Amino acid sequence: MEAKNIAVLVGSLRAASFNRRVANEMIELAPAGLKLEIVEIGDLPLYNEDLEQDPPAAWKCFRDILRTKDGVLFITPEYNRSVPGLLKNAIDVGSRPYGQSVWNEKPGGVISVTPGGLGAFGANHHLRQSMVFLNVLMMQQPEAYLSNISAYFDAATGTANDKLKEVLRRFLDAFALWVQRHHS
Amino acid sequence: MEAKNIAVLVGSLRAASFNRRVANEMIELAPAGLKLEIVEIGDLPLYNEDLEQDPPAAWKCFRDILRTKDGVLFITPEYNRSVPGLLKNAIDVGSRPYGQSVWNEKPGGVISVTPGGLGAFGANHHLRQSMVFLNVLMMQQPEAYLSNISAYFDAATGTANDKLKEVLRRFLDAFALWVQRHHS
Amino acid sequence: MEAKNIAVLVGSLRAASFNRRVANEMIELAPAGLKLEIVEIGDLPLYNEDLEQDPPAAWKCFRDILRTKDGVLFITPEYNRSVPGLLKNAIDVGSRPYGQSVWNEKPGGVISVTPGGLGAFGANHHLRQSMVFLNVLMMQQPEAYLSNISAYFDAATGTANDKLKEVLRRFLDAFALWVQRHHS
Amino acid sequence: MEAKNIAVLVGSLRAASFNRRVANEMIELAPAGLKLEIVEIGDLPLYNEDLEQDPPAAWKCFRDILRTKDGVLFITPEYNRSVPGLLKNAIDVGSRPYGQSVWNEKPGGVISVTPGGLGAFGANHHLRQSMVFLNVLMMQQPEAYLSNISAYFDAATGTANDKLKEVLRRFLDAFALWVQRHHS
Repeated sequence: MEAKNIAVLVGSLRAASFNRRVANEMIELAPAGLKLEIVEIGDLPLYNEDLEQDPPAAWKCFRDILRTKDGVLFITPEYNRSVPGLLKNAIDVGSRPYGQSVWNEKPGGVISVTPGGLGAFGANHHLRQSMVFLNVLMMQQPEAYLSNISAYFDAATGTANDKLKEVLRRFLDAFALWVQRHHS
Repeated sequence: MEAKNIAVLVGSLRAASFNRRVANEMIELAPAGLKLEIVEIGDLPLYNEDLEQDPPAAWKCFRDILRTKDGVLFITPEYNRSVPGLLKNAIDVGSRPYGQSVWNEKPGGVISVTPGGLGAFGANHHLRQSMVFLNVLMMQQPEAYLSNISAYFDAATGTANDKLKEVLRRFLDAFALWVQRHHS
Repeated sequence: MEAKNIAVLVGSLRAASFNRRVANEMIELAPAGLKLEIVEIGDLPLYNEDLEQDPPAAWKCFRDILRTKDGVLFITPEYNRSVPGLLKNAIDVGSRPYGQSVWNEKPGGVISVTPGGLGAFGANHHLRQSMVFLNVLMMQQPEAYLSNISAYFDAATGTANDKLKEVLRRFLDAFALWVQRHHS
Repeated sequence: MEAKNIAVLVGSLRAASFNRRVANEMIELAPAGLKLEIVEIGDLPLYNEDLEQDPPAAWKCFRDILRTKDGVLFITPEYNRSVPGLLKNAIDVGSRPYGQSVWNEKPGGVISVTPGGLGAFGANHHLRQSMVFLNVLMMQQPEAYLSNISAYFDAATGTANDKLKEVLRRFLDAFALWVQRHHS
């Protein structure tokens, strides 16, 4: 069976973002059945329905790429107890125009990442609420709340430690089965 | 007593946005104790902590205006069962850099607006969750969920009808007392 | 293929409960692939871990019945913008003791019901948040928010009207496919 | 000024409950302006509107006590990513019958407690959503998420350590000011 193509959306734009580093680890660790690719969201103009008559190129490009994907993974920090505006904007852009959402029926998953202690729980579950409406078929378990994320990377080299790799591998194995279930 | 200055943030960029029309009605209906002004959020670059070393002019301007305000009102549509990325981005921009949030201790309120039937409930309460962290002192009652919003405006003239004015007036009267309580 | 057995949990104890009437309609309308049965929750003692050494008979009975089911449907009103304590208690009882949850991997769905105008949205999504942890595989679409529920029943005879039947039939057809997907 | 009377509701019935131990610590640590008392909720029959014609004695007693209080503190564990059914039932009982809620306009606060690592975030914020409807004036900051709660108590003696006392004292000092603001 051919590998399924999974879009990875990263909810932080910082160059040294832990979220992006987690995403990169996942790309390397992905099992045979999954091919992960980060789809950039930092250049998407803020959603404005008036622009749909002649949509910004960045919107069109984003939507076109997403349409080719078999599933989606969100790697998100928490901003103010919720999803970053950046990531929510990408979700909004992908959902429109009415009737042409790129999200519909895709299997999905979320990993929330924080230097703090509460697992970015608020972002994780607010994102899930949007996915109900968008009919993204979210994997429930294992949930993935990565607290104290800096401890998972070597301070000098930036290398992910074995514990993080194990957590991500377990998540990806479950996600591969989840994707498979919805594409068979 | 001098009127309190209230920032109004509108969560939609459509030129003909119902949210903006509700905001404009509120500006006209504001009681003596409140002076409302829309603060624009459509030009705020997506939040990226790396930019804080030399923040975009639009961020600085937004933060400076918000700092002069005595309270904040959010008029928001619901995008995909949550706050629009646009509005969440403005909330995020105002919350940073760390220790310099513009939101802290401001009294606040939210009105959610939708052409649909569910009052944009998801946006209303997700926004409230962010306000807990930001220490915006949210008015609890009256809640304001404006469903079927197009029915409140005359289709030909665009004028708000008396029922909408009554709802907004009642909300504003309660909000004026709420703001007063937190500034005495 | 044999029909799948679905537990129906009703979040209201009123004898004339609209939620129960919706549940009864669904039992009648269920397609060939589904067999629905209400599992009563009104006699479950409030959850207290200390009682697990000698669990109340009502807990044991509830857990035993749930274990025989292939899926679960929640029909819930909204109490104070969330799930009724009654229904949440049943969810809690079914989730314990640790490692013996009756919910794990069951496909699930939720219909929220209200005489008001906001579709019991708050109950619907708070319940979904619990289901993430419990690994109940929730159907995302169609969402089902039944506002103004009294209008769907004939005031004199109490009979459900055709519009309600159509909504429930559509929901059940989608749910039958959803259950099938997770049991194949 | 006379001390304000604060009801403390504890969301766990276990005899050795950490939540109850936190509540007891708070009673001892309360500043001069606050007098805390636990109001028991374990004997409240599950809410059923049909019983309002002749309400259970436990409901009446609970409602009568709450009416004498000047504010309310919730100490809650998280059950299945939300408020325990036990505590939600107490909230529901206090909210009825229609028009006679015991909660209206009371200042309130919440501390969420867990042996795990995510601060019982889900319970904390689901409870806050109910408080919007009930017009309980919730303190926003400091938020209080007590993760890894067992580490705050001496394993042998059960005594709270200084770090916990400091956290609770800081919370109570802020709460005393918050209560005062809403009663002046």
